[in-house]
Amino acid sequence: MMRTVGILGGGQLARMLAMAAVPLGVRVLVLDTSGDACAGEVATLIEADYTDEAALAEFADLVDVVTFDFENVPASSAEWLAQRVPVFPNPGALATVQDRLSEKTLFSDLGLATPEFAAVDTREDLEAAVARIGLPAVLKTRRLGYDGKGQARLRQAADLDIGWQALGAGRVPLILEAFVPFQRELSVVAVRSREGELRTWPLTRNWHENGILSLSVSPIPVDDDLADQATRFARRVAERLDYVGVFALELFEHDGRLLGNEMAPRVHNSGHWTIEGAHSSQFENHLRAVLGLPLGDTAGRGASAMLNFIGQLPDLATALTIPGLHWHDYGKQPREGRKVGHATLCTQDLRSLHRRLGEAASAFAHPAWAPAATELGL
Amino acid sequence: MMRTVGILGGGQLARMLAMAAVPLGVRVLVLDTSGDACAGEVATLIEADYTDEAALAEFADLVDVVTFDFENVPASSAEWLAQRVPVFPNPGALATVQDRLSEKTLFSDLGLATPEFAAVDTREDLEAAVARIGLPAVLKTRRLGYDGKGQARLRQAADLDIGWQALGAGRVPLILEAFVPFQRELSVVAVRSREGELRTWPLTRNWHENGILSLSVSPIPVDDDLADQATRFARRVAERLDYVGVFALELFEHDGRLLGNEMAPRVHNSGHWTIEGAHSSQFENHLRAVLGLPLGDTAGRGASAMLNFIGQLPDLATALTIPGLHWHDYGKQPREGRKVGHATLCTQDLRSLHRRLGEAASAFAHPAWAPAATELGL
Ligand SMILES: Nc1ncnc2c1ncn2[C@@H]1O[C@H](COP(=O)(O)OP(=O)(O)OP(=O)(O)O)[C@@H](O)[C@H]1O
Ligand SMILES: Nc1ncnc2c1ncn2[C@@H]1O[C@H](COP(=O)(O)OP(=O)(O)OP(=O)(O)O)[C@@H](O)[C@H]1O
Repeated sequence: MMRTVGILGGGQLARMLAMAAVPLGVRVLVLDTSGDACAGEVATLIEADYTDEAALAEFADLVDVVTFDFENVPASSAEWLAQRVPVFPNPGALATVQDRLSEKTLFSDLGLATPEFAAVDTREDLEAAVARIGLPAVLKTRRLGYDGKGQARLRQAADLDIGWQALGAGRVPLILEAFVPFQRELSVVAVRSREGELRTWPLTRNWHENGILSLSVSPIPVDDDLADQATRFARRVAERLDYVGVFALELFEHDGRLLGNEMAPRVHNSGHWTIEGAHSSQFENHLRAVLGLPLGDTAGRGASAMLNFIGQLPDLATALTIPGLHWHDYGKQPREGRKVGHATLCTQDLRSLHRRLGEAASAFAHPAWAPAATELGL
Repeated sequence: MMRTVGILGGGQLARMLAMAAVPLGVRVLVLDTSGDACAGEVATLIEADYTDEAALAEFADLVDVVTFDFENVPASSAEWLAQRVPVFPNPGALATVQDRLSEKTLFSDLGLATPEFAAVDTREDLEAAVARIGLPAVLKTRRLGYDGKGQARLRQAADLDIGWQALGAGRVPLILEAFVPFQRELSVVAVRSREGELRTWPLTRNWHENGILSLSVSPIPVDDDLADQATRFARRVAERLDYVGVFALELFEHDGRLLGNEMAPRVHNSGHWTIEGAHSSQFENHLRAVLGLPLGDTAGRGASAMLNFIGQLPDLATALTIPGLHWHDYGKQPREGRKVGHATLCTQDLRSLHRRLGEAASAFAHPAWAPAATELGL
């Protein structure tokens, strides 16, 4: 009996979920607002608005379970579907993390420290928030941000006006966060089954450029304490939300403490390395989880680094000369700031990964992809 | 610029090639005589006879290079295509290995010993061949055999008549081979680039049941001498044929010597473990080779075992409880004797693979999948 997973959103995450579905004998049906969403190359695609009830009804009829490539599907659509077919993660969990304010409030409630934050709806709120939190700070839209969009860095008093204007001058609700001069950005990618079993992949360290993820490395040297803490937080958040599927908890490491930045309620860019770098990938385990199948082994295999290609892909033939490099073309048109593909480097250990990253950084003329040995803990 | 690889034959090999093509940004077009060939689920499929020139012309127009999932495509069709578009492996290589007689003759010419063999076209030839080679022996059709079909084991004089009748009583050319009481069956899976670079994956040991591959394990303990010999033979054969792409050289190990059984001019079932068990899989490297891209790393990662599912798939949920198990459903209807899927077990080393095979053998109620520790060289 063939099972069909419905995915709302048809970007590269849906595309990689669809690839993981094929060997499992699972069919994937994607619903996206664009007819040439890149998952359409490997799965059947319905083109419709996320609020189009006729399309949602057809979609619900054709699938056994619904999940997401895109977390900003209207919560009402997720709820509408959930009355007809199992939806994982559940719409309530989605709604909570769609809003940076309820998300950070949840983290605090669960004992996970966060950067100081305050809701900002008016210009006066902003003044009061800055007075309390201080500068530098980051002003963000509460909803719909991604890849660093919908954010303004406030360094000095003069930036308040600029930020306020840039983020809509009160037309959408905002949040102000203290700027954290973190030592490292980490993420825990985890999967929780329908029965409540939780498994985490080895911790990942992330480097951003212009607000967009650029490089992820796993495993990384952390003391057991910190790793345990990260897993404990992931578990606590997932249990509170009764979360099913894969998610990523993004953390700042600052002065030996972990601060919660955000939770991505889906497979996540910082988990792409698991395709080759772990026994079971985040994509396969997400499918296993939402289908009620046993979870796969999240243990890592050697050391991995994921390099994000933003805007356009480098030359394929050059890239493939790098040993242990795995290429992922998303089949998208090049466009500035767009994630069009990634590559994963796999080596036996961090030391050889460091060397390999150096080679890759020069082959791709992207020096930032060669973290210093000390940064990798070597 | 998107490249398109055309594949003649649309079975599970084409399906897995098509899966490997997606992340490379390569399109796959399949031509198969059946409209529901299982590669059609992941690639565009043209339904046509391999000798249909109109279809071949359309196919040639749409692809940048042609390759094979099925080696028994008429040599004339391969040649016809090769006049229009690059075809790898080349039609001449294909023709040589399509016939067990020219194949074994080639092996002998290149210094690779084979089981003693003789061409058998008439009943008298069979008598003479048995008189020379002795019994037990194996009578085979020279062409179109696969999965042990088109073979008859001759144990005693009385079997000659039975075998002769079973294989068509002279309607098709036959070959008689000495039966080799081999210690092990091995295969070298190798890839050769357009520039003539050859890479081999670690040697694989194979176990057959009823003439069909059942279990493959890699790596296996062999002395360096034997491994070097195997690689040398693979290289010699590939160079002589000016072969481009992946192939498998199937060998019998007998009294410390290697005997050539056959060469499969395509990705091969005994190389399926490379998807998870090696840095670059046979599927990816075949595509890289035929497209003229640099070859990927063929080094193994830990130890792997591939279990073939023949006739029908076992229960998915049970299978997925086995740690490190990777499931491959080919999307085929169950049918006796049909390869419908496989699973690959990946572990750190042979010792843990042995344990894992024991678990799998009992989970799948298939005791033959648990080779004794001594058989694995532990
Ligand atoms: N309070 C903060 N202090 C310091 N840096 C921050 C802060 N908030 C965000 N950043 C930086 O900006 C990046 C993007 O921010 P955030 O994760 O909030 O946005 P996003 O657009 O949702 O990102 P993504 O799409 O990667 O999930 C962070 O990963 C971090 O590097
Ligand atoms: N001469 C021989 N001596 C001993 N066993 C043999 C001999 N020839 C074939 N066999 C056994 O039968 C199996 C299948 O034979 P062979 O490889 O010739 O046939 P095939 O149908 O082309 O197989 P495949 O589809 O696996 O390539 C071999 O792997 C081996 O186990």
